[in-house]
Amino acid sequence: MGVDPGLTRCGIGVVDVAPDRSATLVHVGVVRSAADEAIERRLAIIAAGIRAVLDEHRPDVVAVERVFAQNNRSTVMGTAQASGVALMLAGERGLAAETHTPSEVKAAITGYGSADKLQVQTMVARVLRLDALPKPADAADALALALCHAWRRGPAPTRTAPLTPAQRAWADAERLARR
Amino acid sequence: MGVDPGLTRCGIGVVDVAPDRSATLVHVGVVRSAADEAIERRLAIIAAGIRAVLDEHRPDVVAVERVFAQNNRSTVMGTAQASGVALMLAGERGLAAETHTPSEVKAAITGYGSADKLQVQTMVARVLRLDALPKPADAADALALALCHAWRRGPAPTRTAPLTPAQRAWADAERLARR
Repeated sequence: MGVDPGLTRCGIGVVDVAPDRSATLVHVGVVRSAADEAIERRLAIIAAGIRAVLDEHRPDVVAVERVFAQNNRSTVMGTAQASGVALMLAGERGLAAETHTPSEVKAAITGYGSADKLQVQTMVARVLRLDALPKPADAADALALALCHAWRRGPAPTRTAPLTPAQRAWADAERLARR
Repeated sequence: MGVDPGLTRCGIGVVDVAPDRSATLVHVGVVRSAADEAIERRLAIIAAGIRAVLDEHRPDVVAVERVFAQNNRSTVMGTAQASGVALMLAGERGLAAETHTPSEVKAAITGYGSADKLQVQTMVARVLRLDALPKPADAADALALALCHAWRRGPAPTRTAPLTPAQRAWADAERLARR
């Protein structure tokens, strides 16, 4: 499960990733809270939305986008608070959680750490064999986070079998993007 | 209830404030989580500690220290995440929550927005008639937050009765400190 944290829109995506790195869509959605609601209500709404997905799909692991203090938008504190709620809900269930930076996610999905939103949406749709681009961008980002996490941290295919040519191409692209 | 959010030490204080602004200590404590624990575990430990106090003391309102992105310490994101968890737990119970800046709290407690930790601890001990200074500072800060919130947002004494001389002195000191 990937979570793109936010108060106005919190993207949540769940994917099922096979050992051969192929992936299928399990769930994608966005939890919204209104800007005129009190912060404690907004966070409770986000928590309820994340909890519902955790309860329904019981993911093995939770990936959350890392928030940076340097990123000095006025929304950064609300985003950090929402990320804290997402991580806490994973911890409460005994699930492992990890944070990934946006450029780690973009590199894992598109092979290019500075990819734009459309490139990420396009690759997510292609990998998950979707008929349309996942929208809004927060939903695509949550799916990209989940895919990134599974591919980076999942069972390393080299331990059990040699890489297929497609896997090797992915691995090379990721290595290049991380340089 | 006041919460001084943090991952390593999260201060929690509960006070009972009468309409005449006199206050008594109900609970004070610090929830700790080890720095070598995973972030999702740390946040779940903090949440469990806050929940236990909410369940036991059923406060009317929750005050949380406001975290600033400008405050560019390495711990600022963890502090923001812990504050998000505290606010969410209040919202989940339908409790009102509010954030106060450190200088608002210091001004409300000591009459001086740049008071140091010892001055805050001393005034908190005096107001609550404690035999010793509340320690660690996170515990004193949580009590100070709770007092600050009750005094700033509590039933305005002017609506029902004129201010006593002591109340007027407090009100004047707060006004001065806020300038």
